[in-house]
Amino acid sequence: MTFGEFDVIETYFTHRFAQRDDVQVSVGDDGAVVAIDPTEDLVVVTDTMVAGVHFDANTPARAIGHKILAVNLSDLAAMGAEPRWFSLALTLPEIDEEWLTGFSTGLKEMSEYYDCSLIGGDTTRGPLTITITAHGVVPKGKALLRSGAKPGDWIYVSHALGDAGLALAVQQKRLAIPDQHYRKVCERLFFPTPRVALGQSLRGIASSAIDISDGLLSDLGHILKASRVGARLSLDELPLSLPMTESLSQEQALQLALTSGDDYELCFTVPESQRGLFDTLVAHAATKPICIGRITSDLNRVVLELDGEPWQLPAGEQGYQHFAFSSERGHDGQS
Amino acid sequence: MTFGEFDVIETYFTHRFAQRDDVQVSVGDDGAVVAIDPTEDLVVVTDTMVAGVHFDANTPARAIGHKILAVNLSDLAAMGAEPRWFSLALTLPEIDEEWLTGFSTGLKEMSEYYDCSLIGGDTTRGPLTITITAHGVVPKGKALLRSGAKPGDWIYVSHALGDAGLALAVQQKRLAIPDQHYRKVCERLFFPTPRVALGQSLRGIASSAIDISDGLLSDLGHILKASRVGARLSLDELPLSLPMTESLSQEQALQLALTSGDDYELCFTVPESQRGLFDTLVAHAATKPICIGRITSDLNRVVLELDGEPWQLPAGEQGYQHFAFSSERGHDGQS
Repeated sequence: MTFGEFDVIETYFTHRFAQRDDVQVSVGDDGAVVAIDPTEDLVVVTDTMVAGVHFDANTPARAIGHKILAVNLSDLAAMGAEPRWFSLALTLPEIDEEWLTGFSTGLKEMSEYYDCSLIGGDTTRGPLTITITAHGVVPKGKALLRSGAKPGDWIYVSHALGDAGLALAVQQKRLAIPDQHYRKVCERLFFPTPRVALGQSLRGIASSAIDISDGLLSDLGHILKASRVGARLSLDELPLSLPMTESLSQEQALQLALTSGDDYELCFTVPESQRGLFDTLVAHAATKPICIGRITSDLNRVVLELDGEPWQLPAGEQGYQHFAFSSERGHDGQS
Repeated sequence: MTFGEFDVIETYFTHRFAQRDDVQVSVGDDGAVVAIDPTEDLVVVTDTMVAGVHFDANTPARAIGHKILAVNLSDLAAMGAEPRWFSLALTLPEIDEEWLTGFSTGLKEMSEYYDCSLIGGDTTRGPLTITITAHGVVPKGKALLRSGAKPGDWIYVSHALGDAGLALAVQQKRLAIPDQHYRKVCERLFFPTPRVALGQSLRGIASSAIDISDGLLSDLGHILKASRVGARLSLDELPLSLPMTESLSQEQALQLALTSGDDYELCFTVPESQRGLFDTLVAHAATKPICIGRITSDLNRVVLELDGEPWQLPAGEQGYQHFAFSSERGHDGQS
């Protein structure tokens, strides 16, 4: 048994601390929601990346700068929030000018592209650790939560899954794939795209949402737990990239798409009543979300089907556990 | 020459990043100020503490939990902000239940006393590093900044200085003092009191403010630089505790009070025109700020006087430099 991040937070923090009345959503979703204004809520998200845990010495500094903001913007996207500002806490073992140039370039590109301004932070000396706290806004009461899915709702993912996990598996020499495929999946691992516009467009349409940082089954599991529902997934519909389908067996590909993290796609649910509106919304979108299943009333149970037959993951592969000391790496993402 | 925190932030971040129009104060004050509402501004501060840099293995876990929130609340106080919410990024090498219990107890006490709610965060595995981003609010345009001091303004500090530095010096065996004094100054090092109520009461009265995290001369220096002024300090007025005056020579005491950090008192300036209002305000306060000097027009120059005579620090003692690799410890505080 591992002592997971969720246990740490629940045991020592969530249940012990008194809360202000203006806190609408606290620990336990992709971000927090607090009341700031009669018409808008503030959404606050925090993600940390630690050297040797979330990235290694081979990761380009520009990718680290890109990714630390991308994973925070992905949390904002999962809440339906419009990004505004972020703070940076940077702990550095030394002043490496080349690294700082690359890191700040990646960060600046994301900051300016998504119009999310760096407003402050703290620089300290110590083992390389980077924390960003990002702020966004949503119209009052419109934040997307994990807790609104209902039986019968359709389950979507925003784009192909498993690429980042494939890149990591190749890096760690657990899998070998052709070079041109490796380059493509490395882009996805190093430079994830937060689904910021999609997240905002889902306000009032999606009944729940989360971003996939730990693997589809693990993150969908948070929706199921928070919403007290289950899910049935049709694996035939699971979107897979060319590198995945051309380099791997079907079982390998499905396993990665279901359990590997770092893709930062959105997973969300749409009620039948909103499906027409949703289809219209995405009709002309460049990246079209894919419907992969349906919510059931079977609490916390996920049924997987392939070609109409039940399908099971190899034993022990149930998605990534945060802060698993038995595992090789930790992982980021607000609990 | 050391490559300080200020250079890192200015070189790689401040001047390179485009900013949104709603950012009113960014990197370069105790916190950032952003517009959220027609009547209120949001103040955001961030501070990191790293094991082996900001605290050592002898620091009680409860003190670490107290202090990481206290230093953030102190930044909010220096901006005149009312605390509201905070996020916690906690990187842990292992799950140590005793440590987590102590840490979360210290954090909870501060959180509840100052009505500042824990709203989220991230728990990761890695070298012990703690970052808090705290949020407060001020009436629109009323945040206290470093940049408003004018020649003739009176310079105040909120309470006795140097105690935390004395505790550290004793811990590091650079000084020896009687036990009963050591216990008192340790309280100040481990459990600093953020001057939250004082900070808010200074809105509209103080022309500038900062919290003393790095030493009076260093932090007053930020006010002088931001306000483009100088200062004359009367060291006879510098408030010193009994442990300081009873255990140290006058020179040792003044040196600590001027240059040692970690006191988290406020330093602020009050224009002559507001002095009557200010005196009325503090007449019945339990902790009375002390006037220690006056702002001059002599850009960035600090004149020290004792008994009406010029006084100089021993060479090389000019206050703490953030992120100084030549130094034994790094330091927290937004640049």
